[in-house]
Amino acid sequence: MMRAFVTGGAGFIGSSLVDRLLADGCEVVAWDNFSTGQERFLAQAKRHPAFQLVCGDNLDPTALTQAMADCDFVFHFAAHADVRFGLTHPDRDLRQNTIATLNVLEAMRANGIQRIAFASTGSVYGETDIIPTPENAPFPVQTSLHGASKLAGEGLISAYCEGFGFEASIFRFVSILGERYAHGHVFDFYKQLLAHPDYLDVLGDGSQRKSYLYIGDYLEAVLHVVRAGTAGEAKHRTQIYNLGTFDYCQVKNSIVWICERLGLKPELRFSGGKRGWVGDSPFIFLDTAKIRATGWQPMLSIQQSVVRTVEWLMENQWVLAARE
Amino acid sequence: MMRAFVTGGAGFIGSSLVDRLLADGCEVVAWDNFSTGQERFLAQAKRHPAFQLVCGDNLDPTALTQAMADCDFVFHFAAHADVRFGLTHPDRDLRQNTIATLNVLEAMRANGIQRIAFASTGSVYGETDIIPTPENAPFPVQTSLHGASKLAGEGLISAYCEGFGFEASIFRFVSILGERYAHGHVFDFYKQLLAHPDYLDVLGDGSQRKSYLYIGDYLEAVLHVVRAGTAGEAKHRTQIYNLGTFDYCQVKNSIVWICERLGLKPELRFSGGKRGWVGDSPFIFLDTAKIRATGWQPMLSIQQSVVRTVEWLMENQWVLAARE
Repeated sequence: MMRAFVTGGAGFIGSSLVDRLLADGCEVVAWDNFSTGQERFLAQAKRHPAFQLVCGDNLDPTALTQAMADCDFVFHFAAHADVRFGLTHPDRDLRQNTIATLNVLEAMRANGIQRIAFASTGSVYGETDIIPTPENAPFPVQTSLHGASKLAGEGLISAYCEGFGFEASIFRFVSILGERYAHGHVFDFYKQLLAHPDYLDVLGDGSQRKSYLYIGDYLEAVLHVVRAGTAGEAKHRTQIYNLGTFDYCQVKNSIVWICERLGLKPELRFSGGKRGWVGDSPFIFLDTAKIRATGWQPMLSIQQSVVRTVEWLMENQWVLAARE
Repeated sequence: MMRAFVTGGAGFIGSSLVDRLLADGCEVVAWDNFSTGQERFLAQAKRHPAFQLVCGDNLDPTALTQAMADCDFVFHFAAHADVRFGLTHPDRDLRQNTIATLNVLEAMRANGIQRIAFASTGSVYGETDIIPTPENAPFPVQTSLHGASKLAGEGLISAYCEGFGFEASIFRFVSILGERYAHGHVFDFYKQLLAHPDYLDVLGDGSQRKSYLYIGDYLEAVLHVVRAGTAGEAKHRTQIYNLGTFDYCQVKNSIVWICERLGLKPELRFSGGKRGWVGDSPFIFLDTAKIRATGWQPMLSIQQSVVRTVEWLMENQWVLAARE
């Protein structure tokens, strides 16, 4: 039976993974600094005898190494995920995504743990000309500190595979939606419509294209790859997979789905322009042929995952205050 | 007239660049922590009125920012360059190549400097299957901490081009030879033959293929690109160039050239095996069509640069003791 260590274990993705691993019969140690994690996401896990929560920060190598003791697999999902404010604090991505990853790898080495799954990002492709973008797209030029810091994390991990015999699964994806997702446009729109159901302020012109994947489909893909394992020579011990749906939507599509679910017909107030905000991600749409070839496929459409996100927010309004 | 800031300004490449920039009429501030730099490399520069030497470390952001005042171009050539011992100190590459690069970028931003040239490495291509390797080779998997840390530096720089309007020239190259080159196989063999002219211990079987570029040709390429400048939209403000010769050699070829120049016929004692040492770089050979298309081409062959390196060592034996 696997004893898994989940960094960012109280986050949206991390806590969902924790629940899933516990359901699969694993022991789980969740590690989180609660900078954005929510202890309420772990309410169910905390009642499980095979679960342990340790509060700590990836920038504290000693505590990290101690907490990881006796684990045999690390899901490294803690990250500074806010692409939008990268330029305001240029060192934050580097510290929380790159240096933190080195600390995780060193803690693994100190504990004799060699298997890791890493949540990277589709932003590592920069502003590629090839859409949908496959894993082996031409060597991209980085355009965001977030992408650069995650790519650096990938690089450290694959160098550990080469140098120390680690085995890694690295996942590049765009946005995940579903239960516990408490930022992004669905969250923002829901919050606005709760405050003023008669109008909705929308950044840009609503034509921005967005790619999403449902959290359940995402976790299934991660565990599908982890179960299959990696083997063979060093260059094959680093497995990199894009994750995503076949499809994408425009922000204005998503608005229709959200409003329909809420039974509202607000006036839409577009700020105009093609991008939501300065430095807003251009369209990222990943080629997922590689993961599909392993047998995985997503079960929910983007529309279904938007609706599930809205429904979860309706039932969990506490999260609106928690994210103030 | 340009006032240039050269990190690693007392190193092999950095000090050669300093001399070249002074000869071209620039003001130059050399910045070095003297961990491997040699003050004697700057003996000529120090007699020049437009030259200033500041001793400091890239991990000291305050001093770095002060030293950079009034400069308008940064050549970021300081690095932890020893690929061989990356695994012994896994944090060293990250600190000296990645965090240091962020500090350089932040010091530039604080001083309103936006133009940078960066010495990256051909190691960023990992163990690619495409040889010679072009700049837009398929997205590589990193196989060394050195490559990963330099790629992270590249990523930070290009993210600053996108986010802060910087203009960058990034150079990927394998090994540079010539005057002041005081490590690598030419240095090791010369040192051995000085101690025992009758035999030479060679790691591996001598068949290892190596790609080299002469320091003068290298600097000409860097300055050629810098003079041309970068312009246009953000994605074109990061210019990436491979640098190298058309050719490569085997270690055993180089041994012949070295011994001929020294007039020696030592017994060759091969340790055997295909690689010089565990984790020894596989063959890296770069496609340099892109830089050649700009009009640059190397003037010296690999054989000529090996011989020049030997001749410089013969005239500068002090460096043997300095590198103990």
